[in-house]
Amino acid sequence: MQPEDTPELRRLYQGFRDNNLNPLWTQIGDLMPVHPRPRAVPHVWKWSDLYPLAQASGDLVPVGRGGERRAIGLANPGLGGETYITPTLWCAIQYLGPRETAPEHRHSQNAFRFVVEGEGVWTVVNGDPVRMSRGDFLLTPGWNFHGHHNDTDQPMAWIDGLDIPFSFQNDVGFFEFGADRVTDYATPRYSRGERLWCHPGLRPLSGLQDTVASPIGAYRWEFTDAALTQQLLLEDEGQPATIEQGHAAVRYINPTTGGDVMPTIRAEFHRLRAGTETPTRREVGSTVFQVFDGRGAVVMNGETTRLDKGDIFVIPSWVAWSLQAETPFDLFRFSDAPIIERLNFHRTLIEGAE
Amino acid sequence: MQPEDTPELRRLYQGFRDNNLNPLWTQIGDLMPVHPRPRAVPHVWKWSDLYPLAQASGDLVPVGRGGERRAIGLANPGLGGETYITPTLWCAIQYLGPRETAPEHRHSQNAFRFVVEGEGVWTVVNGDPVRMSRGDFLLTPGWNFHGHHNDTDQPMAWIDGLDIPFSFQNDVGFFEFGADRVTDYATPRYSRGERLWCHPGLRPLSGLQDTVASPIGAYRWEFTDAALTQQLLLEDEGQPATIEQGHAAVRYINPTTGGDVMPTIRAEFHRLRAGTETPTRREVGSTVFQVFDGRGAVVMNGETTRLDKGDIFVIPSWVAWSLQAETPFDLFRFSDAPIIERLNFHRTLIEGAE
Amino acid sequence: MQPEDTPELRRLYQGFRDNNLNPLWTQIGDLMPVHPRPRAVPHVWKWSDLYPLAQASGDLVPVGRGGERRAIGLANPGLGGETYITPTLWCAIQYLGPRETAPEHRHSQNAFRFVVEGEGVWTVVNGDPVRMSRGDFLLTPGWNFHGHHNDTDQPMAWIDGLDIPFSFQNDVGFFEFGADRVTDYATPRYSRGERLWCHPGLRPLSGLQDTVASPIGAYRWEFTDAALTQQLLLEDEGQPATIEQGHAAVRYINPTTGGDVMPTIRAEFHRLRAGTETPTRREVGSTVFQVFDGRGAVVMNGETTRLDKGDIFVIPSWVAWSLQAETPFDLFRFSDAPIIERLNFHRTLIEGAE
Amino acid sequence: MQPEDTPELRRLYQGFRDNNLNPLWTQIGDLMPVHPRPRAVPHVWKWSDLYPLAQASGDLVPVGRGGERRAIGLANPGLGGETYITPTLWCAIQYLGPRETAPEHRHSQNAFRFVVEGEGVWTVVNGDPVRMSRGDFLLTPGWNFHGHHNDTDQPMAWIDGLDIPFSFQNDVGFFEFGADRVTDYATPRYSRGERLWCHPGLRPLSGLQDTVASPIGAYRWEFTDAALTQQLLLEDEGQPATIEQGHAAVRYINPTTGGDVMPTIRAEFHRLRAGTETPTRREVGSTVFQVFDGRGAVVMNGETTRLDKGDIFVIPSWVAWSLQAETPFDLFRFSDAPIIERLNFHRTLIEGAE
Repeated sequence: MQPEDTPELRRLYQGFRDNNLNPLWTQIGDLMPVHPRPRAVPHVWKWSDLYPLAQASGDLVPVGRGGERRAIGLANPGLGGETYITPTLWCAIQYLGPRETAPEHRHSQNAFRFVVEGEGVWTVVNGDPVRMSRGDFLLTPGWNFHGHHNDTDQPMAWIDGLDIPFSFQNDVGFFEFGADRVTDYATPRYSRGERLWCHPGLRPLSGLQDTVASPIGAYRWEFTDAALTQQLLLEDEGQPATIEQGHAAVRYINPTTGGDVMPTIRAEFHRLRAGTETPTRREVGSTVFQVFDGRGAVVMNGETTRLDKGDIFVIPSWVAWSLQAETPFDLFRFSDAPIIERLNFHRTLIEGAE
Repeated sequence: MQPEDTPELRRLYQGFRDNNLNPLWTQIGDLMPVHPRPRAVPHVWKWSDLYPLAQASGDLVPVGRGGERRAIGLANPGLGGETYITPTLWCAIQYLGPRETAPEHRHSQNAFRFVVEGEGVWTVVNGDPVRMSRGDFLLTPGWNFHGHHNDTDQPMAWIDGLDIPFSFQNDVGFFEFGADRVTDYATPRYSRGERLWCHPGLRPLSGLQDTVASPIGAYRWEFTDAALTQQLLLEDEGQPATIEQGHAAVRYINPTTGGDVMPTIRAEFHRLRAGTETPTRREVGSTVFQVFDGRGAVVMNGETTRLDKGDIFVIPSWVAWSLQAETPFDLFRFSDAPIIERLNFHRTLIEGAE
Repeated sequence: MQPEDTPELRRLYQGFRDNNLNPLWTQIGDLMPVHPRPRAVPHVWKWSDLYPLAQASGDLVPVGRGGERRAIGLANPGLGGETYITPTLWCAIQYLGPRETAPEHRHSQNAFRFVVEGEGVWTVVNGDPVRMSRGDFLLTPGWNFHGHHNDTDQPMAWIDGLDIPFSFQNDVGFFEFGADRVTDYATPRYSRGERLWCHPGLRPLSGLQDTVASPIGAYRWEFTDAALTQQLLLEDEGQPATIEQGHAAVRYINPTTGGDVMPTIRAEFHRLRAGTETPTRREVGSTVFQVFDGRGAVVMNGETTRLDKGDIFVIPSWVAWSLQAETPFDLFRFSDAPIIERLNFHRTLIEGAE
Repeated sequence: MQPEDTPELRRLYQGFRDNNLNPLWTQIGDLMPVHPRPRAVPHVWKWSDLYPLAQASGDLVPVGRGGERRAIGLANPGLGGETYITPTLWCAIQYLGPRETAPEHRHSQNAFRFVVEGEGVWTVVNGDPVRMSRGDFLLTPGWNFHGHHNDTDQPMAWIDGLDIPFSFQNDVGFFEFGADRVTDYATPRYSRGERLWCHPGLRPLSGLQDTVASPIGAYRWEFTDAALTQQLLLEDEGQPATIEQGHAAVRYINPTTGGDVMPTIRAEFHRLRAGTETPTRREVGSTVFQVFDGRGAVVMNGETTRLDKGDIFVIPSWVAWSLQAETPFDLFRFSDAPIIERLNFHRTLIEGAE
């Protein structure tokens, strides 16, 4: 359906080039596909590959002002070498050696950390020291100063999630250096934010103003685990509680609104009973999972990959996927769903459903 | 400023009466005062008076279909004998004898219960049995079936709060009988709603639809107490946490929105350190307190009344009030603030403030 | 289902009275009926009765500071003599003689005016003079200073609607006197609010902050008429536009939100083709209509009343009603629906519908 | 601040590459700059260059199924040849010859058209024919079928704006072909959407459900011009109406919410008095202007470019800019502000302000 190639057309196209113009008719099929056709590809990173490289970085790469963090980003093989796990999301493994400190800074980019194993690091967010331990989900919403320090003689690693690609792509980011050391080396069991906000169904009268991001610095594993355990027990009792048979799940929320923890990132935790296989889904937007416990597999675009503890996998937009649990299977999940939903681009297709 | 009394004016006024009309100019000062001039008056009911009368009712008055509840309403002395503690709110002491059952029904009116002492009763809300114990705040939002049963050989009393006067006045109420017995005599420690929803910062994926009223059936004392304790500890550490020096407070909220538990009723819990005296406030809207623990006093329109455990007092709209804590002083509070705020009539005046 | 009348019971009931208490079990059926059972009754006021009485007031009653307004309120016969057309709403006919001025004041109560005939008065709202002409709907949201003046040698009458009963009942009202004369005697064709805001689909960048009430002072008949005319033309063309066959209707809105013009009062305009009969409806909340043009009838609780231009009728909560149009039939409507909906008490029953 | 280059480090970096990993510490300054450092550059396209190329396309390039539209996209010189005027926005000149039809299709991408000159084309949106004339702003929100046809013997050109780059980048787009001809060749003066919705302050009762995008298909020049004229007249009268001295502006809105017309695109119209110079601003997010009338200049990052009717210029994120009006100066503007604001990345800096 393209115009005939004539000298006149070539002159026209040269005129376009000379004036920083491009026709739609030569590219519409690529630019506006029938359904999302992401350059990003489904991919699995094995924890058994990631962790030793992080360890080696601990030996070879200092942490400090300038480099800021000993963080190694997962680069989606489809995205041409950019350190983007999806077009919107950044995911990295961060490693902090014994007694090390990562200096304070702040940025518009929203960040979280999730701890698949270990303990001993405190992240200090706007002066509030927050303990990091296995299973905890921790927040550093945009423009909060933060640094980390390891209070032990053991190294510790965790994953970071941020909206760096989205911020970079859309030119929205600001960055500022803070203290070279963290501003408070205390190591309390619970942060001040938790002490104010982690009482179910209760809101402090000193915090009646809704906030853009959650005021909770750490979502503790003990609560996540209890919530999932109760869902499966209720399912055993024949009560509605799980989203699908054998599939319990919670979303981390901002208690001031009941909505997502940050404006750009959704985070959830999923638990499957052994033997559960979820229906095949396609969703607009991109998502990342990390296996927290158990063994199973993910099927993406028909291809099955076996998964062990710590493994990280990415599901780009509109890729068909399902999970299979060999043992009881726990997975942390994050995605760009708030971006997609706030801009009204969300769609889901569940195979076999109407 | 009234017109001269003439035969013509009398004929005019008779014409008004004959046609169901009244002039504004004879009544504007009463109808539209310079500030709220409530007919309701400040008043204190002593628990030492209430409880024995409730006990006597237990001996003389059966509980069952028709009367529905052995509930004794507090009638504001200014409201002409109506059983309204304020123009919008109902407050009653309810009493259930050993092994008794209050039958199931439902109504548009929103209801809660607060337990100042005792235990052993379960309220069954839409089939979900909810334990009632000292310090718990329990919800029965509009149009949920509910009944109560006492599983012990001891009587139990508590207070009920509803929006009955508002509903009656504005003709919004529907009522329907349910089962003559409660539909489930189980006595679980935690209700199904709590097991799904009482995990701080977490929302079940099976409950992503926001609800008009909170899905939490019981707000447990253990959480309320912990939240208040933390606020005072944080204050001790020099951190912002309390609303005023020595005054900790939490609001009970709907976790799907972060807002009030029900569309018409706000509920809070306040804790004052011994010796604390709050600033004098005036607020649009009416509020009720019950002393949960400790001793102190309330000053309303300049008049001081001493308070002990269980005492209930009402502060009508725009009445000047403050609290004084003789000992550590715990108070449960409810009000019609959601009505006032959703309709944009809220105003607060704190004496001594700008 | 009441307890046996014994000396002990009488002593108990005396104890209740002595302590400002009332039992629920003696009154629950009245307080909490199966469906709304309003004291207010359906009623029709004939314009042919109202207008002469307003005229006579013009001769006998001065307008000025103290009485404030020559307004005659419609008193629902069921409400015991109170000047309330419904439990929430006030409706009055206001009359201003040639060259008269009604002085400025402001109050928390929300007010509107609707002009069934005449012209020549300007209402000055916060210093902005707003022309009043037949078919116009005019706003004075809570706490805006306002006065009126008649710029002609003819008297003028209109109806006022306010939330005075709601404000009085719930003790939310404040009142303040302003200038004894209006602050601006200019008589522009369009007010400043209209000039800024009455451009369809456009919002001034100087007005990006949402407002509690509409910034539009006057909703002109020319626009209302055009909107209704278009709906019926679209219906003729087979397009969805009317709410029911032969029944066009618009709601007056706050352009900053798309919602109701004021927090407590909804206003609409309805047009029926000759011969149209609406389905029978019951709705929670109370509503008032004024016939603007044409002839027809209203059926309320099965009783039919014929209606002519200017007639005002009230439909209390949950009363069954329908309209019949003898000629093309235009009606202005206002109600307390925002109160009912914001507090989640709304319900509608359409007879013959599922 | 980079680690020493050693064989071990090289092995580590090779391990990163082998495992689709990249370190943060080698790229943080680029990825997370101190303030937005867009690749997109400020640029001006002259209408006198654009229009002849569009005309030539009319001679050489057919319009029809496959190519879909004779649209020529403006490619920001900083974006490496992609047809993106900014990272989020597409802007093209579209040209339709006498009696031509552009076939129907629909897509998730949100689209608008703005007409700087000409008339005679109707765009048919979900079966509703919408006239296009000079000064009109027209909507095709995501997933509405639409086609265009020229009813005259003259060609016509206009600009299209879409969120194609955002949709492509984030993999959110769906596309579907519709009829090969438009479904309705009628040429009404006003579309059905306008007839229902373009009555200021009025909402049809048949349209009470809020919609994601505006139900108004065309925002007519007559209304835009009137609104701007009134703002300047009010300014002359000393009333607050303009955003800055000599600078009138309106935003196009969705009347069901008062918010932006579509979830991803904001559109406004600005009018400057001759001689006006706006303060220098920096804003997060990218914006495009087209001169509608008059002469003036834009200063971007300190560089001044003279502007004539039809000229289009782009201001990337955080670029300092101001406008200068030589004559009365009218400009249409669109931007990605809803994306930026809904995700809470908005910031503005006005030079000289606090």
